[in-house]
Amino acid sequence: MTFTEQLASAWQKNNSLLCVGLDPDPARFPAHLKDKPDAIFRFCSEIVDATADLACAFKPQIAYFAARRAEDQLEALIAHIHEKHPGVPVILDAKRGDIGSTAEQYAIEAFERYRADAVTVNPYMGRDSVEPWLAYQDKGVILLCRTSNPGGSDLQFLKARVGAGDTPIFEHVAQLVARQWNTTGQCALVVGATFPAELARVRAIVGEMPLLVPGIGAQGGDIEATVSAGRTAAGSGLMINSSRAILYAATDKNASEDYAAAARRVALETRDAINRWR
Amino acid sequence: MTFTEQLASAWQKNNSLLCVGLDPDPARFPAHLKDKPDAIFRFCSEIVDATADLACAFKPQIAYFAARRAEDQLEALIAHIHEKHPGVPVILDAKRGDIGSTAEQYAIEAFERYRADAVTVNPYMGRDSVEPWLAYQDKGVILLCRTSNPGGSDLQFLKARVGAGDTPIFEHVAQLVARQWNTTGQCALVVGATFPAELARVRAIVGEMPLLVPGIGAQGGDIEATVSAGRTAAGSGLMINSSRAILYAATDKNASEDYAAAARRVALETRDAINRWR
Repeated sequence: MTFTEQLASAWQKNNSLLCVGLDPDPARFPAHLKDKPDAIFRFCSEIVDATADLACAFKPQIAYFAARRAEDQLEALIAHIHEKHPGVPVILDAKRGDIGSTAEQYAIEAFERYRADAVTVNPYMGRDSVEPWLAYQDKGVILLCRTSNPGGSDLQFLKARVGAGDTPIFEHVAQLVARQWNTTGQCALVVGATFPAELARVRAIVGEMPLLVPGIGAQGGDIEATVSAGRTAAGSGLMINSSRAILYAATDKNASEDYAAAARRVALETRDAINRWR
Repeated sequence: MTFTEQLASAWQKNNSLLCVGLDPDPARFPAHLKDKPDAIFRFCSEIVDATADLACAFKPQIAYFAARRAEDQLEALIAHIHEKHPGVPVILDAKRGDIGSTAEQYAIEAFERYRADAVTVNPYMGRDSVEPWLAYQDKGVILLCRTSNPGGSDLQFLKARVGAGDTPIFEHVAQLVARQWNTTGQCALVVGATFPAELARVRAIVGEMPLLVPGIGAQGGDIEATVSAGRTAAGSGLMINSSRAILYAATDKNASEDYAAAARRVALETRDAINRWR
């Protein structure tokens, strides 16, 4: 099954557009895990087990593992998701981007070593930097388009001369991907929830293409505005990511609550809040 | 000593603008190394030892290590360079780029775990994605500007409306970095050797800022044109990268030649060819 098919199946089966982001920060782990050598794996796999029937995807962010020499725990975590929750695809959030021969190595890292179903990729180096990812035809390739951070505007919001008119760079990326790069139906885009009007522009350009939407929760994006702007005609097409608000629902606010139960509570609330506006 | 100071010192001491890129591909290793568990470390460290007095920097490309679960060998390699060749800085070629909280993790990976002196960073997500790197004030932050691959033109060569006129995106990146982001003098830019006219434009914008220039050798860039277009008034300011032409000088063409000696021969030829046009 391809990533796109897996995603469509998870949207339906779990009645969910919620992507659970896995950004494990040991400083925020519950006390009993802090000194365990496999604390990152334990924490993340318990979050996964508590939320898998509420999510359309899991998205581990590789930097949180690499900063702590925990590549082995990332491998184990993704293997755990595939084994225990085979219907929920794994997006490796790595935002890689390099020339063809190096991109081939990154694709081996993401798809063969970690066995991710999809990966996030930076488009700045252009089409030939993306092609080695597309050679894995059952995998998803999710290109940065309009990111949710304030600095996203520095380049992405510039107006570029394309043909007769002026087009913001992020719209040009959406056009390039939708019209030229996505010949195999593997592509998706990252568009932040913090800019609903721009999310709507991208949706108008890309048709049914899936959009990965970070920026709700800790980053402040509004759920109603996000869903209204980004959904397809069929009320789907989105992977709305929440990471910290779910992962640290207990440990940041109420240390006596079980952290997996708290994560499930917030994931359920978020899924249902999203579904209210589909 | 900061990265910028280390680089200036290596330029002078080794009379060299040559950056030796370390892209270890075990399929191209000499036969006696192929089955060794630490083949990547052995191969790279022998190349390093054979070329350290001819180089202004070493640039390991992290994808080649990550694709083979060889993070430990990358750590050992960088430690080896620091210990044996303390005058030659290490650039970790990782092309990372993410929002602030994740960029902090990537900076821990590059600067604390691997102890790199500088790192390559993708500018697409804008200033706040770069700031966590700049918080390490003795380190170098080398931003992608104009890359040497054909797809580099897809976005970087678009004309953007900036102020009254039209500016190619890569020139706008050079302006942003030189005029706004580089408040601490830590920044450098990646500009490919395959576009000498654009290299000259960037040099005119950034003054004395160091430029990392990939694309000579295997990628076809011309040394005379590169040096003429990219040097500073003092005949310096460049890290001209060569990877495959040096690493595989023996194994690809003349399997009976010692690979470290062959690498030294090509590094010496390349350094001297560069110096002819300074």
